Amino acid sequence: MLELCLQKIPSRSKFDDVQPHLCQREKGHSGSHDEFPFLRELKASHPSVANKIKRDATMTTGAAWKSEEAGPNRILRWVMLLSDKELLRYGIRMKDLKPQVAAKLREKAAPYDACMEVAKKLTWLAYQMSDAPVPTAQTATYLEAHFGTMRPHSTTCLVCRAPLSFNLFLKAVRGKAEIETGHKNPREHNAENVGFAHRECNIAQGAKTLPEFYRWIAEILERVQQQQS
Amino acid sequence: MLELCLQKIPSRSKFDDVQPHLCQREKGHSGSHDEFPFLRELKASHPSVANKIKRDATMTTGAAWKSEEAGPNRILRWVMLLSDKELLRYGIRMKDLKPQVAAKLREKAAPYDACMEVAKKLTWLAYQMSDAPVPTAQTATYLEAHFGTMRPHSTTCLVCRAPLSFNLFLKAVRGKAEIETGHKNPREHNAENVGFAHRECNIAQGAKTLPEFYRWIAEILERVQQQQS
Repeated sequence: MLELCLQKIPSRSKFDDVQPHLCQREKGHSGSHDEFPFLRELKASHPSVANKIKRDATMTTGAAWKSEEAGPNRILRWVMLLSDKELLRYGIRMKDLKPQVAAKLREKAAPYDACMEVAKKLTWLAYQMSDAPVPTAQTATYLEAHFGTMRPHSTTCLVCRAPLSFNLFLKAVRGKAEIETGHKNPREHNAENVGFAHRECNIAQGAKTLPEFYRWIAEILERVQQQQS
Repeated sequence: MLELCLQKIPSRSKFDDVQPHLCQREKGHSGSHDEFPFLRELKASHPSVANKIKRDATMTTGAAWKSEEAGPNRILRWVMLLSDKELLRYGIRMKDLKPQVAAKLREKAAPYDACMEVAKKLTWLAYQMSDAPVPTAQTATYLEAHFGTMRPHSTTCLVCRAPLSFNLFLKAVRGKAEIETGHKNPREHNAENVGFAHRECNIAQGAKTLPEFYRWIAEILERVQQQQS
């Protein structure tokens, strides 16, 4: 593992006193601090991909509750670790949300450090997709120090295990991105547990863990075969 | 097959000149006309189920486009057979909808007769769920004349093939009904093609036909097994 700088990077976010942004560059680096040094190249070449990784790693998702009554549909995951009472100080009234919306937000909570590791893992995976850009040696070294040697074209969909092409990031069908961030267990947000998945695979998995999902579809096929014989 | 009355039943709907409501009682019946005679008992005992069958059979669905810009989120399926120009006469401006919303609405179009058959098929299936109420002899005879002898507890999820309990109609999780109307081919609305499905099964199936869905999940399991061995 790399030793990181972890100096505070002041921002104008009202949530800075919950958790300051920390420099993720190598300890003793020269030049300015940077929270996402591993995303620097993607930010230049494919800003929508870099932003997606940043957003999925650090913010709660909100696909299902983009409606008025739903309240904040994206919020920093570590902010969701605060109590209802603490959140009031930031103008967030959890009690005003429908219970199921509040529960879903709480499910997405994760500590800052875990989110940073998720961002690095997703970047490491993105660079190993087919058709992915090639990272600079510096970025490759940084990511490999965290998650091991990168093998080009080796990233598969977390759910269906088919190879993923980087080009899918750039495609959207009916306004929806074709690649989503998936979780082996949808209620755990950490580097070990995340990956990329086809949108349709992620939707099919739903609230199930991957082992639950595979068991479920195996049982479906068994019943279909039984009824055909 | 029963011979039906098919007398026009006047209504105050502005779509009456597109397609009048027709009496679905047996030809030569006594008493008043009725478009949904087979739903009479469910309407009294389980109105939400009767309404759901009626709605799913005759109206387009709109889960994904319950937003302001999305336009009419439920409309009679046979009205969606009209051209953009004809629809203008009813104040429906298809051109104002997002292309993908318009396409989705058009996909749900179906002739009146097909919708009526779907309503009967769904009712026939509902009565064959476990924990279902027992239909009167008259209703049973009517439905069986259309689709054959009813076998109690025989209705399974269209997708996963597990038995369905009528009680699931009455359960909702996160505000969503646990049973949905499913389609073997999501782009065809007719009696042969419809059935009930668990919400999660219907979502997992997505836009795929059932054969496509089964092939897809079989391939997923093959890849998972390959990677484990």
